[in-house]
Amino acid sequence: MSPTEAMPTDLKQAALDYHALPKPGKIATEITKPTRTQRDLALAYTPGVAEPVRAIHKDIEAAYRYTAKGNLVAVITNGTAVLGLGDVGALAGKPVMEGKVVLFKAFGGIDAFDIEVDTHDPDEFIETVARIAGGFGGINLEDIAAPHCFRIERELRERLDIPVFHDDQHGTAVIICAGLINALRIAGKRLEDARIVCLGAGAAGLASMHLLTTLGAKRENILMIDRQGVIRSDDHRANEYQREFAADTDRHTLADACVDADVFVGVSGPDLLTADVLSTMADNPIVFALANPDPEIDPALAHRTRDDVIMATGRTDYPNQINNVLGFPYIFRGALDVHARTINDAMLTAAVHALAALAHEPVPDSVLQAYEVDTLSFGREYFIPKPFDPRLIDVVPAAISQAAIDSGVARTDQAVRP
Amino acid sequence: MSPTEAMPTDLKQAALDYHALPKPGKIATEITKPTRTQRDLALAYTPGVAEPVRAIHKDIEAAYRYTAKGNLVAVITNGTAVLGLGDVGALAGKPVMEGKVVLFKAFGGIDAFDIEVDTHDPDEFIETVARIAGGFGGINLEDIAAPHCFRIERELRERLDIPVFHDDQHGTAVIICAGLINALRIAGKRLEDARIVCLGAGAAGLASMHLLTTLGAKRENILMIDRQGVIRSDDHRANEYQREFAADTDRHTLADACVDADVFVGVSGPDLLTADVLSTMADNPIVFALANPDPEIDPALAHRTRDDVIMATGRTDYPNQINNVLGFPYIFRGALDVHARTINDAMLTAAVHALAALAHEPVPDSVLQAYEVDTLSFGREYFIPKPFDPRLIDVVPAAISQAAIDSGVARTDQAVRP
Repeated sequence: MSPTEAMPTDLKQAALDYHALPKPGKIATEITKPTRTQRDLALAYTPGVAEPVRAIHKDIEAAYRYTAKGNLVAVITNGTAVLGLGDVGALAGKPVMEGKVVLFKAFGGIDAFDIEVDTHDPDEFIETVARIAGGFGGINLEDIAAPHCFRIERELRERLDIPVFHDDQHGTAVIICAGLINALRIAGKRLEDARIVCLGAGAAGLASMHLLTTLGAKRENILMIDRQGVIRSDDHRANEYQREFAADTDRHTLADACVDADVFVGVSGPDLLTADVLSTMADNPIVFALANPDPEIDPALAHRTRDDVIMATGRTDYPNQINNVLGFPYIFRGALDVHARTINDAMLTAAVHALAALAHEPVPDSVLQAYEVDTLSFGREYFIPKPFDPRLIDVVPAAISQAAIDSGVARTDQAVRP
Repeated sequence: MSPTEAMPTDLKQAALDYHALPKPGKIATEITKPTRTQRDLALAYTPGVAEPVRAIHKDIEAAYRYTAKGNLVAVITNGTAVLGLGDVGALAGKPVMEGKVVLFKAFGGIDAFDIEVDTHDPDEFIETVARIAGGFGGINLEDIAAPHCFRIERELRERLDIPVFHDDQHGTAVIICAGLINALRIAGKRLEDARIVCLGAGAAGLASMHLLTTLGAKRENILMIDRQGVIRSDDHRANEYQREFAADTDRHTLADACVDADVFVGVSGPDLLTADVLSTMADNPIVFALANPDPEIDPALAHRTRDDVIMATGRTDYPNQINNVLGFPYIFRGALDVHARTINDAMLTAAVHALAALAHEPVPDSVLQAYEVDTLSFGREYFIPKPFDPRLIDVVPAAISQAAIDSGVARTDQAVRP
C-alpha cells in the first residue's frame, strides 16, 4: 500500500532532486508590500504598525482587513497517517505538508504554511492547534490517523470560529460524491435507491458515506466493511464513528456485500475486489477503486470482467481520477472569500453539485491540450473534471461562498477575493 | 510611551492603507519549484513526495536537505508586550509579527512566518512552541512581557535543538553593546573600567547588561534601575533575573546613580534623564536614550547641556540609531547557514564585534546615497552602521557562523547559504 513501492527508481531520484535542488524545500515567504525606503519600513514596522495593532485590539475582526489572516490557511499534521506510510513522525510529514501548501497556492491562490505538531496525544494536539489558530483564516488538518482525527476535528470545529477541515475526510468525500452522482446518472440509477458497499472504514470512507447520506443516499442501503468484514449492528468492535453505519444484515464478507450492489467504493488496498465478486454486482456496476498506487481492482481486469462497469480510480493514468486537488483549494477559496466561520454540510454539498455539473459542460481547448486528448465529453470515460481545468476556480468557490452566505456562516454578505 | 502618540495623523492613515491595500497584510506564500505539469505535481506531491518523507523518517537531519526548515524562522508572540502598547492580545500582535517577517526576508533573505499563541500561561506557551518547533530552523520570540519572557526562552532553549532567540532581549543587547564599544573608544575609556547606569530593568536592559559583562564590563560597575530606584542587594522586590545585578550601594535614585557615571543606557520612557542629572556624569558621557518615540532626554537638550556628550537613540532622525534590524536578520542568517543548534554568547559577542568593526570601515557610496548625506566617517556622529548598509549581510553572518562552528554548536563545518 505504500505509495513508493510502485514508483520507478528514476522517479524516486527525481523526487529527491526536486526537493533538494537548487535549494531545499518547495515554499518560501514573499513580501507583498514595498520595503525599499525608511518610509516603507516606518509603515510596515514601527512606528506605523501600531495603528493596525490598535485597530485589531479594538475589534479583532479588523485582522481580516490589516493582516494576511483572511487568505491564510495552516496545513497541520501530527504525522500519524502520512500518505500510505503510516506514523512516520511529525517532521517526516513536512514534505507532504509543504506539498499541500504548494497545491493551495497553485490551484486556489491561497497563502498557506505548514505546521507539524509533535505529539501523539489528541488532547495535546487539540490544545496546541486551538492556541495558534487565531492568526489564520482556516485550518486544514492533514494525514492524522483515524479514529483520533474525528474527535480532533469535531472539538476544533466547536472551539474555533474559522473553518477547520480534515481534507482526508471531507475533501475526499466531496470528490467521491461528485463522481458518484455522475456515475449513477450514467448507470440510469437514483442515489436514493442505490445499494452501496464501502470497503475501508477510516477517515475517507466514513466521511464519504456521511456526505452521501446528506445528498440523499439511504443509510440502510450502505454496507461499510473493514478488515474484519461488514460492520454490523450485532458486533461491538466498531468505534463510535463506524457504528453510525452498522447494518442489520446477515452479510458478513465483501463477497456477500457486493451481490447485487450498485456501487463499490474502495478506500482500502490493492486487489481486494476480485473479478468473481465484481461479476455478482448489479447492472452497470459503479466501481471506485481508489487505493493508490494499486487500485482494489485493476481497471483492465474490471473492464474484461464486465463491459458495463463504470470506473474511477485515484490514478492520473486512467480516466476519472478522484484527486483531492479538485476540492480543497476551491472549498477553502470559497470559504475565505466570505470570511466563513466554518465549512458546513451545505457548503460541502454545494461543492459536490458544482463539481458534478462542471463535468457536463463542454471542455475548453486548453484542457484538451493540457491532457493531450482530442475530445472529452460527459460519459463513462469522463464524468469527473480534470485537475488542470481553469474553470474550477470560478465555479466551485462561487458555489461554496453562496452556500456559506445562505447558511449564515459567512462574515460578509458578498464574496470578495483578496 | 505608546509609539502612536507622537505619530502624525497622515502617517497613521498611511500605515492603515499600507496594511489594507491593495490586499490585506504584508506577506504571502511563494512556491519555489515548478508546478505547471502533472509530472511536476507527481514530484511535489504524491507519489514522489514519499521519497523525502522516507529519508526524513530514517534520519530527521534530512529535513534540512529536503524541506524549507533550514531557512525557516517562526516569529512567535503571545501578544503581552506589543511595541509600547502592552498586552493587546495575541491576534492584535499579528501586524507586528508580519512586520518582523518582512524584515527577516528583506534584510536576511530568511523565510519566516508568524504565529500568535493565545495564552497568558507561560507553561502553556512553552508547551505549544515546543510541540510545533520541529518544522523550523529557528524560533524568534517577540514582544513577550518580562519576567515570563526569561523563563520561556530559557526552557525552550533547553528543550529544543534549534536556535531560540528573544529579540527584545538579545537582539537589542547586541546592537547596544556594539554601539557602547565604539562610544567608549571615542570617549577614550575602557569597558573594564566604565561605570554604567541602566534605566529599565526589563528584557532589553537585563540582556544588554548581561552581554556587556560577557564582553568585559564589571558587574560591580553596573547599577540597574527600575521605577522604584536602584536595584540593591538589601532590597527584596527584584525578580531572580534582576537580582543578578543587585548592587551593594547607598545610591538609591537615578540622580545618585548618575554622578560620575561613564555610561547611561535608557530603555525606559520619555524625559526621565534631566539636564541636571546629565551634568553630574563623567567627562565625555555616553548617553543611549532609547525610549521610542520620545527618548529619555531630547538630543538637542543633551547637546546644549554638555558639548562632550556621545549619544545614540532609537530614532531614525538622529545619528546613531539603535535599530534591531541591524541584528536579528544577520544573527539568524549566520546561525541558519551552519544549521546551528542554538545561538550562544560566543555568537552574540561575535555579532557585537562585527557590527562595531564595520562602523570603522569607509562607507560605500550606496549608503551615502540611501541616507542622502555627503560623508559618514567614524566619530561622534557615526559609530553604529546604518540599517541599509549592504555590507551587513556579508560581515555579520560570517562572524556568527564561524563562532557557531568554533563553539561546537553548528551541524555543518562550513557555512552554506541556501
